[in-house]
Amino acid sequence: MTQFDFFVIIFVSNFIQFTMLNVLSSHRSIRKYTDRPVDRALIENLLETAVQGSSNTGNMQTYSVVVTTNEDLKKKLSPAHFGQPMVVQAPAVITFCADFHRFSLWCEQREAQPGYDNFESFISAAVDAVVLAQSFALAAESRGLGICYLGTTTYNAAEIIEALRLPSLVVPVTTLTVGYPAEDPALTDRLPLSAVVHHEKYEDYTEEKIGRLYEQKENSEFYRKFVAENNKKTLAQVFTDVRYTREANEFFSEKFLNVLRNQGFLK
Amino acid sequence: MTQFDFFVIIFVSNFIQFTMLNVLSSHRSIRKYTDRPVDRALIENLLETAVQGSSNTGNMQTYSVVVTTNEDLKKKLSPAHFGQPMVVQAPAVITFCADFHRFSLWCEQREAQPGYDNFESFISAAVDAVVLAQSFALAAESRGLGICYLGTTTYNAAEIIEALRLPSLVVPVTTLTVGYPAEDPALTDRLPLSAVVHHEKYEDYTEEKIGRLYEQKENSEFYRKFVAENNKKTLAQVFTDVRYTREANEFFSEKFLNVLRNQGFLK
Repeated sequence: MTQFDFFVIIFVSNFIQFTMLNVLSSHRSIRKYTDRPVDRALIENLLETAVQGSSNTGNMQTYSVVVTTNEDLKKKLSPAHFGQPMVVQAPAVITFCADFHRFSLWCEQREAQPGYDNFESFISAAVDAVVLAQSFALAAESRGLGICYLGTTTYNAAEIIEALRLPSLVVPVTTLTVGYPAEDPALTDRLPLSAVVHHEKYEDYTEEKIGRLYEQKENSEFYRKFVAENNKKTLAQVFTDVRYTREANEFFSEKFLNVLRNQGFLK
Repeated sequence: MTQFDFFVIIFVSNFIQFTMLNVLSSHRSIRKYTDRPVDRALIENLLETAVQGSSNTGNMQTYSVVVTTNEDLKKKLSPAHFGQPMVVQAPAVITFCADFHRFSLWCEQREAQPGYDNFESFISAAVDAVVLAQSFALAAESRGLGICYLGTTTYNAAEIIEALRLPSLVVPVTTLTVGYPAEDPALTDRLPLSAVVHHEKYEDYTEEKIGRLYEQKENSEFYRKFVAENNKKTLAQVFTDVRYTREANEFFSEKFLNVLRNQGFLK
């Protein structure tokens, strides 16, 4: 093999790295970013590709994407995401919204009566916005960017709506922080596939099966430490008593239902 | 370049075809499939990769995936999807569900009191299920499979719950039909990117901007024909009066809210 061929193969192997399955297999949430800015042109290019690659209901494209890079605006978004440092630190914060506002405006201008101020329209637009978000996340990762999903988006949708001035029939459903990785975390553990996949129809779990599915996770050193640090007896208690409590879930349920009401998706 | 090098490059170019951005750019919904079955091992492999590549809230993995290939069961699912032929024709129908049932069972077995019978828990699990669905869709497309999303999933969730025997705290949010493509449709048109992307914060649309954004779509021969076939004056009227009417949206809103109530996610 000549030196030229060697370089051809090195060049080509850069692409191989970024095959779909490779991107998925090597995904980690990235919460620390370098100072290197992310070009607006790159973000737009990735968004355009993601839009093309994302199925959506009736091709109505009832989603909107808000790309925030301005320091002051990121600081304004920060409390809505409970001050998680990556919101201010990330070069770009991208908010994915269910949006029937634009589509309804178009209908009104075209002698058509829009009927999208209801829950089903919200759900279908929200599903489409999330499909788009994941297409974008994977496209970004394939170009060497790191991303982190912010589940706080639906907790504090009201504050995000205010900060980004989202009109009626627009509701944020998820957010991604985006930048070049400044950390190299380990892959996240997952339950055995048989925990989440059912063949033909849903097969309910026996006590024994639950035990088996969570065994490895519960016995790992990482989670044993996590339980000890939280002064709990079991890993499940860390979730129910500390991280995702009934009180918080019920509080944010009311809050988000109010957002849907205020934005016109719920009577 | 020797013949060997030529073969190396041909071999390698097979992988290049399946880069992330290429898969996204060449996405089309596939509604007709060949008779070739899809190996269960391939589906499981793609699901495993998709699970690894999908961020989810607190790594609780509160989703379930039901892979249906049995003819009788596909026929049972068919009416829930309004008899769309691909449900019976596709080798596999995959239903993605928000699932706090398994997680709650685990909590109960571990001296923890689960508090996930509320709307916020449904929304967070639904977002995670859709992220997983899109990771799987792209993984499948990267291996030469064709997919189609079924938005009917939330319309007729009640019937799907019955057919797949989904327990309390499990709600289907989207469905994919999967198989080897027997059609080669054109790429779907999309609005200009500026229709869906906002920089920094939401910039509301002027009448003139709406006109400009929808101009190309409205003037295409495809949509002009579509409007004529539906005996409507404008394209928007086809959506509001025929495809996604207020009456249907309100009917399915009530139906889906009842499903959330019956499955324990809404008081």
